[in-house]
Amino acid sequence: MHTEIICIGSELLLGFINTNNAYISERIGSIGLKVARETVVGDNFEELKNVFAEALSRSDIIIATGGLGPTFDDITREVVSKVLNKKLVFNKEVMKSISEHFARRSPAGKIPKSNDKQAYILEGAEVLQNSMGTAPGQIMESDGKIIVLLPGPPSEIRPMFESSVLPYLKTRFGKGILKVKTLHTTGLAESAVNDKIKKIVDIERELEGGEIAFTILASPAGVDIKITASGLDEMLIDKTIKNIKEEFYGILTRDIYGEDSQTLEGVVGEMFIRKRKTLAVAESCTGGLIAHRITNVAGSSLYFKEAVVTYSDISKKRILGVKEETLNKYGAVSKETAHEMAEGIKKIAGTNFGLSTTGIAGPKPSSTGKPVGLVYIAAASDKDITVKQFNFTGTRTDIKTRIAAAALDILRRSLL
Amino acid sequence: MHTEIICIGSELLLGFINTNNAYISERIGSIGLKVARETVVGDNFEELKNVFAEALSRSDIIIATGGLGPTFDDITREVVSKVLNKKLVFNKEVMKSISEHFARRSPAGKIPKSNDKQAYILEGAEVLQNSMGTAPGQIMESDGKIIVLLPGPPSEIRPMFESSVLPYLKTRFGKGILKVKTLHTTGLAESAVNDKIKKIVDIERELEGGEIAFTILASPAGVDIKITASGLDEMLIDKTIKNIKEEFYGILTRDIYGEDSQTLEGVVGEMFIRKRKTLAVAESCTGGLIAHRITNVAGSSLYFKEAVVTYSDISKKRILGVKEETLNKYGAVSKETAHEMAEGIKKIAGTNFGLSTTGIAGPKPSSTGKPVGLVYIAAASDKDITVKQFNFTGTRTDIKTRIAAAALDILRRSLL
Repeated sequence: MHTEIICIGSELLLGFINTNNAYISERIGSIGLKVARETVVGDNFEELKNVFAEALSRSDIIIATGGLGPTFDDITREVVSKVLNKKLVFNKEVMKSISEHFARRSPAGKIPKSNDKQAYILEGAEVLQNSMGTAPGQIMESDGKIIVLLPGPPSEIRPMFESSVLPYLKTRFGKGILKVKTLHTTGLAESAVNDKIKKIVDIERELEGGEIAFTILASPAGVDIKITASGLDEMLIDKTIKNIKEEFYGILTRDIYGEDSQTLEGVVGEMFIRKRKTLAVAESCTGGLIAHRITNVAGSSLYFKEAVVTYSDISKKRILGVKEETLNKYGAVSKETAHEMAEGIKKIAGTNFGLSTTGIAGPKPSSTGKPVGLVYIAAASDKDITVKQFNFTGTRTDIKTRIAAAALDILRRSLL
Repeated sequence: MHTEIICIGSELLLGFINTNNAYISERIGSIGLKVARETVVGDNFEELKNVFAEALSRSDIIIATGGLGPTFDDITREVVSKVLNKKLVFNKEVMKSISEHFARRSPAGKIPKSNDKQAYILEGAEVLQNSMGTAPGQIMESDGKIIVLLPGPPSEIRPMFESSVLPYLKTRFGKGILKVKTLHTTGLAESAVNDKIKKIVDIERELEGGEIAFTILASPAGVDIKITASGLDEMLIDKTIKNIKEEFYGILTRDIYGEDSQTLEGVVGEMFIRKRKTLAVAESCTGGLIAHRITNVAGSSLYFKEAVVTYSDISKKRILGVKEETLNKYGAVSKETAHEMAEGIKKIAGTNFGLSTTGIAGPKPSSTGKPVGLVYIAAASDKDITVKQFNFTGTRTDIKTRIAAAALDILRRSLL
């Protein structure tokens, strides 16, 4: 089944970041369909018409995202209507659910007129309910080709893709199976991970009716290893992935913090909840990012009690009880200050753990000449305290990201 | 000049988000070159070879990202060497700068062996220094085609693209000019912005040797309007954009908070610094996101003094002085609690402004039945206090994003 993705929106050619192709490729892969091509195109009627016509001539399944909104530049419906020669029909049910969406959001407000446009559906298409927004998706078959139209916003695509599109495609075409297992590490450089796992990756392996592949992915938050296995026998694929996974654990041991959709903050949170421990955080250079990551996880209030962002010396002294003498003698970016911050937040919050960060996020070095990327992280527990020095590189946001990952990883390792 | 982008990496077909095509399209556009196609392809030797060969047959400029790293699956150098029939030559200078990068990062550590691979350069190619990582870029001309090879990580691409690739392409091909002006709004729904600006967008406009286009873009952080103008006369383009921009300001007035690369946190920060006011933040449901956004801006320590993330009732009482009675009578998610939080943080931090958030980020309603998305934001100043109620929709992270944007916008409007 030749499958392709078309992402529509002039913004995608002008600097707006597209996450939809990545999401759809991954999900399509899970039912053994492989995306052959991804095309990005702007909101231009003629251009978009050509892209759809070409795609129809070469592919069996076409999944398009974007251009279904209420605004003047949303033209996907009209283009597909033209290319397929199918009428657009006003759908009362859809209009009703658009009205309801607006009523929920602002009970007193009226619906902006341009939303009517979103209630037009291609003749013969099935409506995909949008639980997160106003533009419904559409799915239809025409001359043996499957055409799926989805809105642009990722949070609107995902529920309708999982509940409608994926089951539909699986029933129609799912035969082969492709599974991906991701192992997340943090604290090691990409090349160091590569050298460690080279002997596993270099082994020639075969899988009946499919193949096994490896990928390494580095970001400021850590290095991921992806194992991809395809074939016809699900049990065999699962067993193969399990065995290879164990080889990686054998070498990387505790450097692996999680798998697949697990996040570092999620893993750390589970450990805190399981061990019935509580946490408070004192951030300086990370400026709230650690607390933000922790509270992205639903249920974090079970162990995360409070954070303070002490962005001035005065706050460090007043809130955390960091000594004037320490700040004068060693500076705000020092092992000693990190130590007192972690002890301080643990004490005032009455938690089992206190975590602190202090450093130079950049882009300029400190007034006392401490270099960008110099960071101290401290983790105080009921038993002891760990303070570590790091020298990170990258932009201000890269450095904040690296510090947050390192800090959460220190907590993880101390809870192991 | 037919220009295309090739993004290389199996991860991009397996769920990893690609930001490079968006960045390159935008930057290429600034010198009047238009990206005709974007292709995403995996780390497969044969497939990648075909993609490069096809691209060479149809395009004048090919910009590829990814596959230049040290690991086994980085094969771009080898593929291009094969397709162009050019040797790969070991470059001592490059090896030296890779060694220096490692020495900076960990003075005591040794360089992982697999980094050697990155010192191989295509015969006749110019080396593009990588100030943020180890893999250098390469730029070369072959049979009248320009081939640019860039690493994958965005923070590594950007410096070399700005300092080397863009000036090179501009000198060689820059003729037409394309300019983009983005106006950022927040607080209005996408369809409301559309209805307001319809009369501006609907006017037929002409620009000699080029065109004018409009795009609306919605995200949880707000709605953007993009004006794109192309042509041959830079002064005329600038004047046209300026006039159209003023039409938008005439209608949207204070709903526009900034332009182009300006961020809400950046704009708010400038206002605080200009007015010599200081800020402290008390976050509940946003969990540190507001402080994180504020501290993403270099120099924020000039006005941002501290934040507290009071994720428990106890913290709200102990740190901020929220009254037990208020929590019992109205609950933690209430106008009254938001009010006392903002007053509390302003008082203890001794700042001119105190900002607070309390609400239900989801995915579950509160134990007392308050719905997901119900949020109170309060901003206390030396003169008065504003408390607003919101009903946001979306996922937990969408809701956190919307609250942070609304909170920063309340500060902005009160400083206008």
